[in-house]
Amino acid sequence: MFSKTLFSMRMKRAHIISIGNELLIGDTINTNAAFIGQTLTHLGVAIEQVFTIPDDYSLIKRRISSSLEHADVTIVTGGLGPTHDDITKKVVSEIFGSKLVQNERVLNHIKKIFFDRGFTLSPSNIEQAAVPDVCDVLYNEQGTAPGMWFEKENHYLAVLPGVPYEMKYLMEKRVIPKLKSLYTDLNIRVTDYLKTAGIPESTLSDLIGNLEEYTNNGVGVAYLPNPGGVTIRLSADGTTAEQAEKKLLKLRKMVYKKSGDFIFAKQRDKNLAEVVGAILSEKKLTLAVAESCTGGMLANELTNITGSSAYMLGGVVAYSNSAKSAMLSVDAELINQFGAVSKPVALEMAKNAAQKFGADIGISTTGIAGPGGGTAEKPVGTVWIGFYLEGENFALKTVFTNNRLVNKQRTVMVALETVRRRLLGIKTYPYELKPHFS
Amino acid sequence: MFSKTLFSMRMKRAHIISIGNELLIGDTINTNAAFIGQTLTHLGVAIEQVFTIPDDYSLIKRRISSSLEHADVTIVTGGLGPTHDDITKKVVSEIFGSKLVQNERVLNHIKKIFFDRGFTLSPSNIEQAAVPDVCDVLYNEQGTAPGMWFEKENHYLAVLPGVPYEMKYLMEKRVIPKLKSLYTDLNIRVTDYLKTAGIPESTLSDLIGNLEEYTNNGVGVAYLPNPGGVTIRLSADGTTAEQAEKKLLKLRKMVYKKSGDFIFAKQRDKNLAEVVGAILSEKKLTLAVAESCTGGMLANELTNITGSSAYMLGGVVAYSNSAKSAMLSVDAELINQFGAVSKPVALEMAKNAAQKFGADIGISTTGIAGPGGGTAEKPVGTVWIGFYLEGENFALKTVFTNNRLVNKQRTVMVALETVRRRLLGIKTYPYELKPHFS
Repeated sequence: MFSKTLFSMRMKRAHIISIGNELLIGDTINTNAAFIGQTLTHLGVAIEQVFTIPDDYSLIKRRISSSLEHADVTIVTGGLGPTHDDITKKVVSEIFGSKLVQNERVLNHIKKIFFDRGFTLSPSNIEQAAVPDVCDVLYNEQGTAPGMWFEKENHYLAVLPGVPYEMKYLMEKRVIPKLKSLYTDLNIRVTDYLKTAGIPESTLSDLIGNLEEYTNNGVGVAYLPNPGGVTIRLSADGTTAEQAEKKLLKLRKMVYKKSGDFIFAKQRDKNLAEVVGAILSEKKLTLAVAESCTGGMLANELTNITGSSAYMLGGVVAYSNSAKSAMLSVDAELINQFGAVSKPVALEMAKNAAQKFGADIGISTTGIAGPGGGTAEKPVGTVWIGFYLEGENFALKTVFTNNRLVNKQRTVMVALETVRRRLLGIKTYPYELKPHFS
Repeated sequence: MFSKTLFSMRMKRAHIISIGNELLIGDTINTNAAFIGQTLTHLGVAIEQVFTIPDDYSLIKRRISSSLEHADVTIVTGGLGPTHDDITKKVVSEIFGSKLVQNERVLNHIKKIFFDRGFTLSPSNIEQAAVPDVCDVLYNEQGTAPGMWFEKENHYLAVLPGVPYEMKYLMEKRVIPKLKSLYTDLNIRVTDYLKTAGIPESTLSDLIGNLEEYTNNGVGVAYLPNPGGVTIRLSADGTTAEQAEKKLLKLRKMVYKKSGDFIFAKQRDKNLAEVVGAILSEKKLTLAVAESCTGGMLANELTNITGSSAYMLGGVVAYSNSAKSAMLSVDAELINQFGAVSKPVALEMAKNAAQKFGADIGISTTGIAGPGGGTAEKPVGTVWIGFYLEGENFALKTVFTNNRLVNKQRTVMVALETVRRRLLGIKTYPYELKPHFS
């Protein structure tokens, strides 16, 4: 609350208006508002409200008119397509008392798109090239609907298409640069997203401890739990990026000092497979996997990363016991004696995967993903994760949940985080698990 | 527009109010509003607006008060947690001029949750058991924050926690039954989500043709393109579910007649792997996969399905050429002569996967996922998908996009849709591809 009051004079306030029946009936999730929220927050513009409204002329008109009056910046998305539902352009044209005029540059761009695809132009496509005569056109190289920019007594309005990648393009290339040039004295917000894995939120916050002395004067911290781990968000407001950075410095240093081993990435869009891949590349190590309960998820996440063929040699999905023997040479006797979900089988699978693919590192997973198949001794969620790494053969045992997908995801997370920590020389294991050696 | 006017007298209107700073700054995507929108739409309640607002006392108060006046039903989510940001309960208590009183049943439930987890109760946890004395408590077996129900002159207000699975639970178990008992004369909306795969939107709509004669009197159709395929949404409003069903009948029949072969599921939450799995189970067939460019995604999607161990025997992720030879016995000469991305290699991989795992069916993928690695002859996005199925060994060749993830997803889709069509005796292949036999 303190930072809010302190900066209220410099703060600009934004409304986001998302238009489209599909958003209200829940056929489409409103991801656009989240993206715009992130982008404006970073710029130092506070999002005051998001309004999601249907393709209804009078409602759109009332809503935009009201936001134009109450907010400094209004971002409207949706309703710019070529069909009769798409009425946003007509509404804003009426609000500003302007005429729709053909824009030659937009028309040529639309013609080119249609020509390239071998389609013929319809009258409604040509109509997309008409824009209100009082707006600045936000040229849209990614699609047929141009964005529009309006100004009215220091209130700014951007009208953008609802297609997410077109909206993103226009926000990044047109709207943000415009706002930056208009608002030169905004409080910039610098935000760190420190992603952790293998540590529960409560343990992490206990470990980091009380941060009150670091979080004042526009500096804040939050813990954001996600399925893949807990993200620590640090933010600071400042008149310049440099000033905000400087304010964040002490807090960031403290958080790293306390929890640095658990932080695998500093960017919100970086995942564990990417980080492990980069370490493998740097150390020139290769990897192979042997998956039972994760059923291909581990290989899939690793191969989602561009360039992964350099270190990911391959894997076996061995769902059945016979596949474990036939494809991974796991001794059938071992499976008989200890069961497929056991330490000896996990150890063998990891070692043999490495050997069969000629990889430096082998990872294996074997467990009861659920929802059925548990026993008193081995309940649903019991998972053994095996490793062959730096010449050592070891396994971790965990008991997760009753949910099949959650169990698969957590197993993959623990597997990758274990490799990350080991290769970086970090002495702990995810969730303080203890390694069982062969 | 016709249906809107016709039913306006019977139509009830809802507002959704989503509370939470994390929604405005874009750290969390507002999936709750989409779920509530779907649920109320199905019930015949029209969503007029969604308001997303910050944890701000006066704004929450103004917003809820206004919606209570203008909407028949208002659903509020968020701000019911145990921290100082969570002020929703105080606000509604003030709006209704009521007192917060301890609810014993809620308190006992909270105590039990903490006892089971071995945690000790804090004062703020105990405060969660206090509810306004004028509300009906919506008991929440899934978490510690109770939901609340208020009535004011035929306006209804439900206040729910923001945690998605708790919100869903309370919507389904408490809110919807209440609304059903209060609104006995609503126009029920019946909606079909007919999911197709392997056919572009324009081809599908051309195939189905003009539906004007079927879409009047509250009956509508829409094409919803998704990454996994195009969904056809059919909907009809009626005074009873039976009447709405009846109105939909002719349209549904026509759509099936024209495009039935392409429809793989009739429920929006059913995916292709689940459908193929059900067919395999029914026919008592087993499957194995050999993946290069999809890197485990095909196995992962198949094994995400509960019970898949009955038909999915396993797979090999053979990223490197040597793995294709060592693990799948693909003749190294074949790879040298034709390249890894070729018909002969795809054919061998599929046949050998089936043989090595002892499965009835083998599927293989080999392609250039990108973004790098393309040549003039084999550009990025070139994929061969091989099959060994009903004793036949054949392969399909496609050229997808420059995007690695999209290429993986489309390859998995075409692979699964091909198996579905073949096993159901449908004569066409996805995207009208032609099979290349060995």
